[in-house]
Amino acid sequence: MEEFKELLELVKEKKFIQVKDIVQDLNVVDFAEFIEEMDEDDASAIILFRLLPKEMAAEVFAYLDRDMQQRIVEKISDKELSGILSELFLDDTVDFIEEMPASIVKRVIKMSDSDTRKQINQLLKYPEDSAGSLMTIEFMELDDDWTVKKAIEEVRKKSQDKESVSTLFVTDPKRKLLGTIELRDVLAGNDDEIIGNLMETDIISVNTMEDQAEVADMFKKYDLIAMPVVDNEGRLVGLITIDDVVDVMEEETTEDIYKMAAMEPIEESYMDTGVFTLAKKRIVWLMVLMISATFTGMIISKYESDLVNYNLVFLTSYIPMLMDTGGNAGSQASVSIIRCIVLGEVAFKDIFKIIWKEFRVSIIVGIGVAVLNFIRIIITNAIYPTLANPLLTAFIVSLTLIFSIIIAKFIGCTLPLIAHKMKLDPALMASPMITTIVDALVLLIYFNVAAIAFRF
Amino acid sequence: MEEFKELLELVKEKKFIQVKDIVQDLNVVDFAEFIEEMDEDDASAIILFRLLPKEMAAEVFAYLDRDMQQRIVEKISDKELSGILSELFLDDTVDFIEEMPASIVKRVIKMSDSDTRKQINQLLKYPEDSAGSLMTIEFMELDDDWTVKKAIEEVRKKSQDKESVSTLFVTDPKRKLLGTIELRDVLAGNDDEIIGNLMETDIISVNTMEDQAEVADMFKKYDLIAMPVVDNEGRLVGLITIDDVVDVMEEETTEDIYKMAAMEPIEESYMDTGVFTLAKKRIVWLMVLMISATFTGMIISKYESDLVNYNLVFLTSYIPMLMDTGGNAGSQASVSIIRCIVLGEVAFKDIFKIIWKEFRVSIIVGIGVAVLNFIRIIITNAIYPTLANPLLTAFIVSLTLIFSIIIAKFIGCTLPLIAHKMKLDPALMASPMITTIVDALVLLIYFNVAAIAFRF
Repeated sequence: MEEFKELLELVKEKKFIQVKDIVQDLNVVDFAEFIEEMDEDDASAIILFRLLPKEMAAEVFAYLDRDMQQRIVEKISDKELSGILSELFLDDTVDFIEEMPASIVKRVIKMSDSDTRKQINQLLKYPEDSAGSLMTIEFMELDDDWTVKKAIEEVRKKSQDKESVSTLFVTDPKRKLLGTIELRDVLAGNDDEIIGNLMETDIISVNTMEDQAEVADMFKKYDLIAMPVVDNEGRLVGLITIDDVVDVMEEETTEDIYKMAAMEPIEESYMDTGVFTLAKKRIVWLMVLMISATFTGMIISKYESDLVNYNLVFLTSYIPMLMDTGGNAGSQASVSIIRCIVLGEVAFKDIFKIIWKEFRVSIIVGIGVAVLNFIRIIITNAIYPTLANPLLTAFIVSLTLIFSIIIAKFIGCTLPLIAHKMKLDPALMASPMITTIVDALVLLIYFNVAAIAFRF
Repeated sequence: MEEFKELLELVKEKKFIQVKDIVQDLNVVDFAEFIEEMDEDDASAIILFRLLPKEMAAEVFAYLDRDMQQRIVEKISDKELSGILSELFLDDTVDFIEEMPASIVKRVIKMSDSDTRKQINQLLKYPEDSAGSLMTIEFMELDDDWTVKKAIEEVRKKSQDKESVSTLFVTDPKRKLLGTIELRDVLAGNDDEIIGNLMETDIISVNTMEDQAEVADMFKKYDLIAMPVVDNEGRLVGLITIDDVVDVMEEETTEDIYKMAAMEPIEESYMDTGVFTLAKKRIVWLMVLMISATFTGMIISKYESDLVNYNLVFLTSYIPMLMDTGGNAGSQASVSIIRCIVLGEVAFKDIFKIIWKEFRVSIIVGIGVAVLNFIRIIITNAIYPTLANPLLTAFIVSLTLIFSIIIAKFIGCTLPLIAHKMKLDPALMASPMITTIVDALVLLIYFNVAAIAFRF
C-alpha cells in the first residue's frame, strides 16, 4: 500500500509522467481495490485511472465494482471508452453493461463496431445463470488437418486476443466441435504431427442453456480449466474458463447456506441489497415456521391442566433446553447429510447405512449429554433447592434427552435424503425445518415420560 | 455408461485386445468412477485397470479413492507399480502415500529412484493444510536472458513432464524467483524478444508454510490459475494449480458449514468417518449449549409461581413458537453476516451500517410475522376456544414477537462481527449460539410484557 500513497502524492503534485511510470508495474487487482476504496468525492481515483495504459485500463476496469465502473464511464471521453471496450473481453463487457443504466448501455453499444454489437446482443439474450451467459466467445479454434507447426504459428498470431489458450478446440468448416487439445500437448508434439491425430475425442462440453451449477459440477468432476460451449447442433459457440466458474461456485454455496438458514437467496451482495428485498427474502420462511409451531403449542395446551393439577409446572422450565438440544442434534445430522448430497458423496441408496451410522452416533452423544445434564440438575438443585424430587426430575429430563437426540438425528439424516429423492432442494430440510418438527416430538416424548413417572 | 457395460462383457470373454482398444478413448474420470463403483469382489475392476496404457493408468489412479488405490497396489506387480509412479505427478504420489498403510508406503518408496524419494520425503514434511503440502514441484522455469524463441523451444521439450505450463516462472541461477510470465504472452512475443523484458515483476506468491485457506483466497482475489510457492529465502520451490485450490475451497466451505451447525469439522468425508469420531465432533457443542440453556430454565422457574397463581400457565404453550421464531430470525442475520465476512464483503467498520440495516429489516419482518400470529391465535381460539381473553393473549404474544425479532437480528448481526474483530472464527457465532442467547432474551421479554398486561 506504500506505493499507492506515493502515487496519490504525485497526482496531487500533478507529476503525471512519474505516475504513469509507476502504475504500469502495479498489480491490476490491487490497483482496482485501491481506487474503489477511495472517497467518492476524491477526483484522484478517476485521474489515476485515466493515466493507465489502455490495455491495463481495460483489465482494471473489469475488476471494478458496478458503482466505480459507472462513475468512470460518466467521466471519460468517447475515445477513452472505445479504447477500453476494444481491450475488454466480450464476457466482461456484457457483465458490465448488464448492470448499467440505459444511457450508458446506449453509449457503449454506439461505441462498439457492428460485429461486436451483434455479439453483445447475442450474449445478452442467454438467460441469467446459463452456460451461455457465463461464456466468452474469444476462443482459439484449430483445423483437424493442421500440423503441429501450423497450429503453433496460428496460436502465436492470435493468442493475445483470446480469453484462454490452455485448451484449444478443433472444429470442422461448419464449426462443429470435433475434439479438444491442451496447448501443452500441441507444444509437446512434433512439428509434422497432425492435430486430428493428437486431439482428445471424448469431449466434455455443455449446451448454452445448461444451468451454471451443473457447469461448476463438471469443472470440479473433470478438473477442467476451460470447457467448450456448444449450441443445439453441436457447433462451438463459446468457452467457459475456470475463473468464472470459481465465482459461480461461491454463488451456489451462498445460496445453499441461505436456504439452510431459512432464507431465500439474494441476487446481489448483502450490502448492495435493499431493506425491503432482504425482508421479503426472510419473512416467508419465518411465517411458515411460525405457523407450523402451532402444533407444539397444542401439545403443551393438552398437558397444561395435568401440569397444574399434579403440581408439575416446574417441568416447563426444562422445555427450552430440551428443544434446543434436540434442534441442535437434528441440525448436526441434517447439515452433514445436506453437505454430502451437495458434494455428491451420498445418494438415496445409502439411506440405511446413514441411519445406522447416525443411530450409533446418537446413542453415544445422547448418553453423554444426558449424564452431564443429570449432574447439572443435581448440582443446580443442591445450590438452590427448588425440586421436590430432584433425582426423579433429573432422570426424566435426561431420559427425554436421550430419546430426543436419537429421534432428532434420525429425522435430521432422513429428511434431506427424501427431499433429494423427490427432486426437492435438500438445503430446505436444514436446521429450521428440522427444529420445528423435532420440537413437537421432543415435547411428546417429554410429557409421556413424565406422565409415566408421575402417573398422571 | 453403455460402453462400460460392453467393456465388462469383453473382459468376461477375455477379449483383452479389443478391451485395450476401447479403453484408450475413454475419459479417465469416468473410467475411475466406473471401476470404483464396481463390486469389491469383482476382479474385473483390477483386470480393466491393468489393461490401461501406462500413462492413462497413472491418470486414472490419481482420481481413484483411497480404498481402490490400496486394492490395486496390492494386486499389481512391482513393474506395473513403478510404471504408474513414474507417470504420476509428485503431489498426487504424496497425496496417495499419505493415506496408505506403512507396508505400501515402504514399497512405493523402494520403487522410486533416489531423486524422487528425496522429493517425496521433502513434501511429506510440510504440515497438512499448508501451501507446501498443496504444491507440486513439476513447474517450468525460464532464465531471464532467454529469448522468446529459446523459451518456446524449452517449453516444447519439457512441457509433458510439468503439471502446468500456463504460467511460467523466471528464476536466477540461485533459483530466486524474478518474475512470472503467462505462456500465452511468451507465444505472442517476437522470436528475439528477451523474457526478462516481457515478464511480470509484481509477483503474487506464497510461502511454503502459508495456510491453504489463505492460498485459496489469493487465487480468488487475483483470478489465478497457478501460483509459485517460495521458501523463506524467496527461492522457487513449487507450484500450486487451480484444480487443487478448488478442492481446498470445498473443504473450507464444508468446515464453515459444520461450524455453523455446532460441529467441529471432520478431516475425511462423512461416509469415511467413524462413529466415534463423529460423536466426538458433535458432543462438545451440544454439551456447551445444553449447559448454557440453564439460564432459560432459571428464567422460567423464576416466573413459575406467578404463572400458577395468576392462572397463566397457558402462556407457556407459546414459548416454543416464540423461541423458534427468535432463533430463526437471529440465524438469518448471523448466517448472512458470517457469509459476508468469509467472502470479504464486510468488515468491523461496517457494524453501524449493518445494525441500521438489520433494524429496519427486523421492523418489517417483525410486524409482518406478528400480525399473522395475531390472526392465527384468534382463529385457533375461535375453533377450539381455550383462552379467557383471546385478544389480550394474542396481543401479548405478538408484541413479544416483534421485540424478539428486533433483538434477535441485532444479536445475530453484531456477534459474528465482534468475533471476527477479536480474531475468533465468526462461524462459531451462527445459529446454535445465537439461538441459546436469543432464547433467554425472548423469555425475559415475554414474561415482562405479560407481567405488565396481567399486572403480576
